[in-house]
Amino acid sequence: MNNLPTYSDIESAHKRIYNIIQRTPVMFSRGINKITGASVFFKCENFQRVGAFKYRGATNAVQLLSDEEIQKGVVTHSSGNHAQALALAAKIRKAKAYIVMPNTAPKIKVEAVKSYGGDVIFCEPTLKAREKTAKDIIEQTGAILIHPYDNSNVIAGQGTAAKELFEELGAIDIIIAPIGGGGLMSGTAIATKFISSQTMIIGSEPKNADDAFRSFYSGYLIPSDNPKTIADGLLTSLSQKTFSIIKQNVTRILTASEESIIAAMKLILTRMKIIVEPSAAVPLATMLENPDIFLGKTVGIILSGGNLDLDNLHFYNL
Amino acid sequence: MNNLPTYSDIESAHKRIYNIIQRTPVMFSRGINKITGASVFFKCENFQRVGAFKYRGATNAVQLLSDEEIQKGVVTHSSGNHAQALALAAKIRKAKAYIVMPNTAPKIKVEAVKSYGGDVIFCEPTLKAREKTAKDIIEQTGAILIHPYDNSNVIAGQGTAAKELFEELGAIDIIIAPIGGGGLMSGTAIATKFISSQTMIIGSEPKNADDAFRSFYSGYLIPSDNPKTIADGLLTSLSQKTFSIIKQNVTRILTASEESIIAAMKLILTRMKIIVEPSAAVPLATMLENPDIFLGKTVGIILSGGNLDLDNLHFYNL
Repeated sequence: MNNLPTYSDIESAHKRIYNIIQRTPVMFSRGINKITGASVFFKCENFQRVGAFKYRGATNAVQLLSDEEIQKGVVTHSSGNHAQALALAAKIRKAKAYIVMPNTAPKIKVEAVKSYGGDVIFCEPTLKAREKTAKDIIEQTGAILIHPYDNSNVIAGQGTAAKELFEELGAIDIIIAPIGGGGLMSGTAIATKFISSQTMIIGSEPKNADDAFRSFYSGYLIPSDNPKTIADGLLTSLSQKTFSIIKQNVTRILTASEESIIAAMKLILTRMKIIVEPSAAVPLATMLENPDIFLGKTVGIILSGGNLDLDNLHFYNL
Repeated sequence: MNNLPTYSDIESAHKRIYNIIQRTPVMFSRGINKITGASVFFKCENFQRVGAFKYRGATNAVQLLSDEEIQKGVVTHSSGNHAQALALAAKIRKAKAYIVMPNTAPKIKVEAVKSYGGDVIFCEPTLKAREKTAKDIIEQTGAILIHPYDNSNVIAGQGTAAKELFEELGAIDIIIAPIGGGGLMSGTAIATKFISSQTMIIGSEPKNADDAFRSFYSGYLIPSDNPKTIADGLLTSLSQKTFSIIKQNVTRILTASEESIIAAMKLILTRMKIIVEPSAAVPLATMLENPDIFLGKTVGIILSGGNLDLDNLHFYNL
């Protein structure tokens, strides 16, 4: 599938992965509703397997491979949630997952990938080294590259979270998803436009990694240059594919400061009693910065993941 | 109701409070099942209103007061979850809640009680001063004392958590609840014995606050003398009432070290992605210390609360 994914791809993906993924709960908090003046519903992908929505897309892509294809394994370069997701998705098909990681990756992330059966291959911490190493593996093994977001099957899988949210809530006024490489946002936007065309589709980004914001409003793809934000799942930039989908389907993009991201994270931890990683707090952070847009509205948020390194918690000054 | 509560009291309590409390979810973690070799189901009272099971008991006790009785308000001395629970339970009946707190209570706890509409009255940080202050308030206002656990209506309310757990799971091999003053354990034991007489009923306590353990196995009520544990919800000792119920209904009591409590807390935070306070981690901690008892069993745990002070998180060395 090289064309842009459609809603029918999301529907097929959902049937394909339904019994493999977790159907995550939708939660809310009276306290957060009071603070925002809105009715906010959180689709809790922090409770997804491997702790993030990434498992949906990876599972869909891996399940679509034929027995012959999967035999040679899959490969990706990532030190984030996609790495763990791909490792587990491959394990379920009894296949190898080669995960290229920088030799500077935190031990906890390396161990997590290994615990899901992934084969970790280290390389120098540059994009060039990562791509070269992945390419070498593909040449040597015949493994298939599963890109974390520049892949229509992955995007279709990510869109199933929004589909489930609408199944639970019916029509809502606004849906928000965070934007990193744009896979979740793309899937969310395609699902929402088909299921509930009246719903405003908002993407949210850290101010410190606002390539989607700048690309969206300029009309040109402007990748971030070495961005720094505590929302470490959102450091990557859009691809041409995700930019096309976002340009076509998203209503607007909002950004949030580091301070707002921390404030939102603190609200989610203390009011909802659930663990989220900083990236997952970005949609609520943009609500805190733009209260007027959301006042009196019904809002759905895709809470992207919960892989928080507790050692860093005091560092956030929560 | 001065007699010991029965299952029929729990059933009535459940009907009475059903639409006021939150029906909390039952969750599990593949990771924790793998580590323990058991099937462990957590009744997530950290998602209860005010963040703890205490709201069940306080609501039942307050709802049982007549319009005339409630008019004069309710009173308790507590700086913990019962204080917040009683404040909200009273607010819902548009009544006053006088909460006697030591002038050394953390500001965050004082603010929480106030945010639920409670009237905070400070006193010196001694049991004597707390009891005297509460007594004075009762004399001046006619307010009714709602004790955090030495009260049959409170105990009946706490028992509704176990009732809901059985409604969800059917028969299970073992149920575990933490023991502080013994209200939750009493309600849990009464409910379990009636609904599923084959289920082993285990109470769990910090080794550093093991008055129930020592009382249970000696046959005499032996209160703790100034205990110190990070499980600060379990510092209180049994009353004659809760000791009687526990002696009659509980199968055994296990204790856990501070290290095990921290290890269990870390497992719940990282594997289940939910926030719990240290006291809520004690049942899993006792499982970690006594794996043989639980191997291959289906285990239900009442996860008592989630009011964790994030500022203290690094202090736990998680």
